Amino acid sequence: MTAPGAGPSGEDALIARYFKPLATDPGAFGLLDDAAILKPSRDDLVLKTDAIVEGVHFLSDDPPETVARKALRRNLSDLAAKGAAPAGFLLTLALREADEAWLTPFARGLGEDARQYGCPLLGGETVSTPGPIMVSISAFGHVPPGSIVHRSGARPGDRIAVTGTIGDAALGLDIIRGGAVASVLADNAGAREMLVGRYRVPQPRNSLAKAVRDHASAAIDVSDGLAGDLAKLCAASGVSAAIDVASIPLSAAAAAVLARGSVGIEALVSGGDDYEILCAIPESRFDAFAEAAELAGVAVSSIGIVISGASEPKFLDAQGRNVPLAHLAYSHF
Amino acid sequence: MTAPGAGPSGEDALIARYFKPLATDPGAFGLLDDAAILKPSRDDLVLKTDAIVEGVHFLSDDPPETVARKALRRNLSDLAAKGAAPAGFLLTLALREADEAWLTPFARGLGEDARQYGCPLLGGETVSTPGPIMVSISAFGHVPPGSIVHRSGARPGDRIAVTGTIGDAALGLDIIRGGAVASVLADNAGAREMLVGRYRVPQPRNSLAKAVRDHASAAIDVSDGLAGDLAKLCAASGVSAAIDVASIPLSAAAAAVLARGSVGIEALVSGGDDYEILCAIPESRFDAFAEAAELAGVAVSSIGIVISGASEPKFLDAQGRNVPLAHLAYSHF
Repeated sequence: MTAPGAGPSGEDALIARYFKPLATDPGAFGLLDDAAILKPSRDDLVLKTDAIVEGVHFLSDDPPETVARKALRRNLSDLAAKGAAPAGFLLTLALREADEAWLTPFARGLGEDARQYGCPLLGGETVSTPGPIMVSISAFGHVPPGSIVHRSGARPGDRIAVTGTIGDAALGLDIIRGGAVASVLADNAGAREMLVGRYRVPQPRNSLAKAVRDHASAAIDVSDGLAGDLAKLCAASGVSAAIDVASIPLSAAAAAVLARGSVGIEALVSGGDDYEILCAIPESRFDAFAEAAELAGVAVSSIGIVISGASEPKFLDAQGRNVPLAHLAYSHF
Repeated sequence: MTAPGAGPSGEDALIARYFKPLATDPGAFGLLDDAAILKPSRDDLVLKTDAIVEGVHFLSDDPPETVARKALRRNLSDLAAKGAAPAGFLLTLALREADEAWLTPFARGLGEDARQYGCPLLGGETVSTPGPIMVSISAFGHVPPGSIVHRSGARPGDRIAVTGTIGDAALGLDIIRGGAVASVLADNAGAREMLVGRYRVPQPRNSLAKAVRDHASAAIDVSDGLAGDLAKLCAASGVSAAIDVASIPLSAAAAAVLARGSVGIEALVSGGDDYEILCAIPESRFDAFAEAAELAGVAVSSIGIVISGASEPKFLDAQGRNVPLAHLAYSHF
């Protein structure tokens, strides 16, 4: 009840202008109604909600286009880790003002990702806030009945695999903040750009969803740091894990930073914002999983093994010694 | 990446403590996984998202219990107006701090409403914000395939009906803010309390959903003011409307305030936060609709008729003269 308006409200006009072009699914009714529909399906519908807040999950001067992509891709990454194919999403956008210079690239980035990942905008709302911008997304996906991949199915002996590379986003954030990583990579603009890109625009592994569904006993998306998310998967499964630190996949840039000693492995495995898939694969399935991953064009690395017990997952160096990790994950509170 | 924590994160602990007891649906997996599921259904799944922001949609000193109820009931009201039966919801809660004194009554109010309306919590997330509290909810409902009730189906000759009473919430907000209404009702604590309650805790008309689905040609929930939401329904349907102002249902308290002249009808029909259902009913269906409404225990009033044309809906007094309404609805921007 902040800003009285007459006739078609400013909010409706804003939605029509920026977001109607994204609402290509017939169930979105062109955003002209108060609700959307998803048609009946034989699949289970997977539901996920995730929000990002300015100054907490993204930076005020991050490009609006990447803010949009990050908001959607965080949800897409969760769908992928659960083995689900994207079906669509709902958007709630809290803004201080209807700023065209911000909304135009935001909507463009969101629309491009919606198309790329086959995840159309089904409904949206904008609300006014005096505070930070917040982008809240609820995303929906399909899995055949009963086939969602839980955190809780890992069993002793399962191989632990992770996609892509770990720690890049944490280094990218450090660069944006003008931390030590920027000076370590002072003569390598390409590496700096890659790492910043990994922070701003996650690369969710949706093409791997079917392989995860077909082969993984448990999976989680790595958003709060590899170590913390592994601990969650193990706790939910009632198991522990032994990780070979040398097997954790690192980008060349991250390996170079690590080699210079300015950042420890701890920062990489607890950094967050990786949006890779961490999963447990029964040994008998691993070759088939690796083959499916190759066909899907997603790099996967075997980094350890599930063991019995309730202790925190162990991170072991080449000599089998424990690598101590003080901070397993960040928490919002 | 604000507050590093070790072991099970504060966020996870917060969700487990306050919201796990609400996640009674098997598809919520006890909030222990990264996503929830809805099982396959032959129905269309209706999707709605709606958020409320502290200082914009609710007041900082509103009781947390009523903030929770309002957040959920706004969504339930939309489902009702679309003819849908509630299936569940996802919650995103942005908080400055994990304040037990706020979260305990918030979760209690939310849980009670989830049970009362048969709309279980399926998944939830808490995020940290330096700004105002924001409660973002995505709600899901079922309708038989193709039977969602749109804004756009109203036809000339249809009766226009509205549930409950109009304008109470706007008067309640005025009382909370110490406006003129409080002094008009200085000697009537019961009326003041009722009006404030109407602002803080909407009464969504979910028991009327089937009657709306069976009989209405178009429907919308009245959240931005009767006049503005009627204008939206008419615009979507390509029609206009003639409303008999004297037929607009008012509570005794609202009628008393109106009679004293301290508030005009304009404030009541443009006030917002009513969460009543406004619908168009073909004349041949009206008796059946009224009967179904009576069985559902929901008061409905016939307030006018759909007419052809593209002009703004007319509000007419007993002499058939136009009642001018300057502000048809409020807008967030």
